[in-house]
Amino acid sequence: MSRKQAAKLQKAAPAAEGVELVLERGQRVRLADQLYGQIFEQIVEGGLNVGDKLPSEHEICDRFGVSRPVVREALLRLRADGLVTAHQGLGTFVSHQPAPRLKTFSDVKNVSAYLRAQEVRVALEGDAARLAAMRRTDEELRHITEAHAAFVDELERGHVSQEADLAFHASIAQATGNDYYLGVLESIHESISGFMRLTLSLTRTGSRQRAQRVADEHAAILSAIREQDGERARVTMQFHLGQARHRLVDRERD
Amino acid sequence: MSRKQAAKLQKAAPAAEGVELVLERGQRVRLADQLYGQIFEQIVEGGLNVGDKLPSEHEICDRFGVSRPVVREALLRLRADGLVTAHQGLGTFVSHQPAPRLKTFSDVKNVSAYLRAQEVRVALEGDAARLAAMRRTDEELRHITEAHAAFVDELERGHVSQEADLAFHASIAQATGNDYYLGVLESIHESISGFMRLTLSLTRTGSRQRAQRVADEHAAILSAIREQDGERARVTMQFHLGQARHRLVDRERD
Amino acid sequence: MSRKQAAKLQKAAPAAEGVELVLERGQRVRLADQLYGQIFEQIVEGGLNVGDKLPSEHEICDRFGVSRPVVREALLRLRADGLVTAHQGLGTFVSHQPAPRLKTFSDVKNVSAYLRAQEVRVALEGDAARLAAMRRTDEELRHITEAHAAFVDELERGHVSQEADLAFHASIAQATGNDYYLGVLESIHESISGFMRLTLSLTRTGSRQRAQRVADEHAAILSAIREQDGERARVTMQFHLGQARHRLVDRERD
Amino acid sequence: MSRKQAAKLQKAAPAAEGVELVLERGQRVRLADQLYGQIFEQIVEGGLNVGDKLPSEHEICDRFGVSRPVVREALLRLRADGLVTAHQGLGTFVSHQPAPRLKTFSDVKNVSAYLRAQEVRVALEGDAARLAAMRRTDEELRHITEAHAAFVDELERGHVSQEADLAFHASIAQATGNDYYLGVLESIHESISGFMRLTLSLTRTGSRQRAQRVADEHAAILSAIREQDGERARVTMQFHLGQARHRLVDRERD
Repeated sequence: MSRKQAAKLQKAAPAAEGVELVLERGQRVRLADQLYGQIFEQIVEGGLNVGDKLPSEHEICDRFGVSRPVVREALLRLRADGLVTAHQGLGTFVSHQPAPRLKTFSDVKNVSAYLRAQEVRVALEGDAARLAAMRRTDEELRHITEAHAAFVDELERGHVSQEADLAFHASIAQATGNDYYLGVLESIHESISGFMRLTLSLTRTGSRQRAQRVADEHAAILSAIREQDGERARVTMQFHLGQARHRLVDRERD
Repeated sequence: MSRKQAAKLQKAAPAAEGVELVLERGQRVRLADQLYGQIFEQIVEGGLNVGDKLPSEHEICDRFGVSRPVVREALLRLRADGLVTAHQGLGTFVSHQPAPRLKTFSDVKNVSAYLRAQEVRVALEGDAARLAAMRRTDEELRHITEAHAAFVDELERGHVSQEADLAFHASIAQATGNDYYLGVLESIHESISGFMRLTLSLTRTGSRQRAQRVADEHAAILSAIREQDGERARVTMQFHLGQARHRLVDRERD
Repeated sequence: MSRKQAAKLQKAAPAAEGVELVLERGQRVRLADQLYGQIFEQIVEGGLNVGDKLPSEHEICDRFGVSRPVVREALLRLRADGLVTAHQGLGTFVSHQPAPRLKTFSDVKNVSAYLRAQEVRVALEGDAARLAAMRRTDEELRHITEAHAAFVDELERGHVSQEADLAFHASIAQATGNDYYLGVLESIHESISGFMRLTLSLTRTGSRQRAQRVADEHAAILSAIREQDGERARVTMQFHLGQARHRLVDRERD
Repeated sequence: MSRKQAAKLQKAAPAAEGVELVLERGQRVRLADQLYGQIFEQIVEGGLNVGDKLPSEHEICDRFGVSRPVVREALLRLRADGLVTAHQGLGTFVSHQPAPRLKTFSDVKNVSAYLRAQEVRVALEGDAARLAAMRRTDEELRHITEAHAAFVDELERGHVSQEADLAFHASIAQATGNDYYLGVLESIHESISGFMRLTLSLTRTGSRQRAQRVADEHAAILSAIREQDGERARVTMQFHLGQARHRLVDRERD
């Protein structure tokens, strides 16, 4: 948050006017999911912008006739996504917005699914990287090293390749010697592959600097696995996936 | 390891004689997997017993015509399973044996799959418990509390119910508000459900004390989620799943 | 929380009457620390009991002329200590009380210092246990094993020995090969040693079952270190210290 | 490790000739510490270079008349420091060397103390960052934000200020509300402050890029604390300290 944004908060801006939230009862989707999805869309589409204050819990309850726990859950998930921040006594404010370009590429609902998938990946692949560092054979290390080199090669030719990215992550899961890691990752990857292509294309059209950052993070993971340092492998992988998730909702950074 | 076992190690017992390992080349199963599986079976079936020394890496290489990395990987996974321990300069020794009763209940190969599934669960459900503690609504807490009570009720009637156990774990995944956790858990649970029934039946026919320990661990997880303590929720869940995995290969404890 | 307590909450009990909180301004102690300490004392001394509702943040602000952030911080620390729980839309309720006997043994302020020391120990000794599992020599393992046996021996003679407990934890820190772990632990141990004697004496006069639980947890840590399983060593140590911290504020459990 | 280095390993280079290790028995320093220190010095001073093979465990035992566990422990700590890597069946090779400039600045023994201090900091400050994210008041966030800005300001004027770096880390420990974190950090900082000045001066004389990386990592930590994301705060802090430790022994990177 910039100083300007902080100053904006001090003025305790009134709840943004333009917000239009309509929950469709009777749908199979849970109310908290609907509410979350609608606020999410408002933020992506610019109905709510960085620095804007959300309506209070009380107001949201009234406006939609939903209970407090439903509102709480929706707000907690937006906080977990890094889109809003609660300020004590002042309320909840939009702190980040996904890149606006997203709208032209993808159904907005996919953004939310992608953020949830990344959340699982942090725990799962972090542990896979730890085990890979401890158990990888020299042959498995060679596969990981080659997968990294292939990703970097593409990068240097100006391509950000989803296949090469997935191959790097899969080679690490493989090196755990536990086939469940690879199985779970593949099923997650599949469910978000359309979206991952998108985020990588954002990286591509985004700054060169961002693409370099991804390559640097891959290199740090590889280095820890090579040196059989399980703890550093876990931390570098969790950092990488956490930052990837966070970069998506950080309009300023790109 | 008891003092007696330790003494046994000091004598640096020669490699157990009865071991018969035959790898089937040309099978689709990787050599390391086959080697791991065969030593695993020997330990379950009693060809190798607690305190016995495994053949050296060198000997295993020679006997099967496999490379050192293949042997290393198989031994590392046995160590990760908690079945063998490496002693510096002395070699690798059997330190734990799954309950012999396993043989009558189940294809031995399932034991190994179960141990791998539990390894993934430690990371995944540990993180789910953390998120559940931070995000659960009061209604979700009620579901978790009821699932716990149902498991304990069955226990007090002398039953160890797999369904009730799974329902407790699923209610926690549900409370993350992230449907991927539940999805992944359900697919893992499905793949090991036959085997889980078995381990719970071991608990049932095992000591009353062991069943009480499972209930106590569930209670500790519930307490942390109720008190919204994410870190303690993560640790208690990881402790619970880690101990469950370890109890399976700990013949003495029951 | 029992069903009875839960029911009590549903009635949304009014803020307990007897509470007398007086902050001494101009003292060097921060306001949040003072407020925290006073509510803590009320809970230990029974001015506030399990199920009682705390005054609202707003009321506390008014009554003491302190700002909202000061109140928030004090409440957050009570939550972190496991003494109070926030219920959405209902307020904050006392969920646990330290054993009343504490009052006769110790200045109440020490309880709070002890809980803070235990919080640091969870992270620090958890990591030490992980490193000990990975690096311990056979000789260091022997020291840890003997320290564990000595603690259990005392226990079986009816003593709960603080020295034996500390020696067990110190032997693990020693086995990291990194002298900072032992240095930091010794300085923390020293600052809380008076209090640890007390908590162990509570264990002593408390149920036999509780003492057995401590011994079981030590055994689980030892087993993970023996089997060179760094991750399980970390989790079992964090579970042990977290539960010890939690047992102190859990009147029902003993 | 570059391809060239890897090729060098394939040739299984004989143990470097120039190595002179003399242990002084009767000293109070443990043998493993002495052995570790001497190999460490050889690597810093260039008696052993990247790609060189260390003598085998057996040879080291013979040459110094020390036991296998002593050798194992020394090698494990060198691996933990990231200086050597074990290659299955080939032996242990030097994989990283601290910047040679170190020699002109500092007693080599301090490098080893610094690496050990950083190891403790990863666990301790990682946990402090997590708690700071969960508990910080708006005022504490302001302090952290200002400490970050002050560090960046110095950087932009071409200074890398140790005081500003420590102040940033201390402001986070302060925001845990648990005075033990700050106390322990201050005592660790004090013990390595001479050395930290050195590593920062390396950063200063090193590439501009490296200094920017430190500032970026601080920004990532601050962002997670601002957004009250405890898990991301922990991971970004552990990444930062782990990388700082690793950068010191990574000659190529600067």
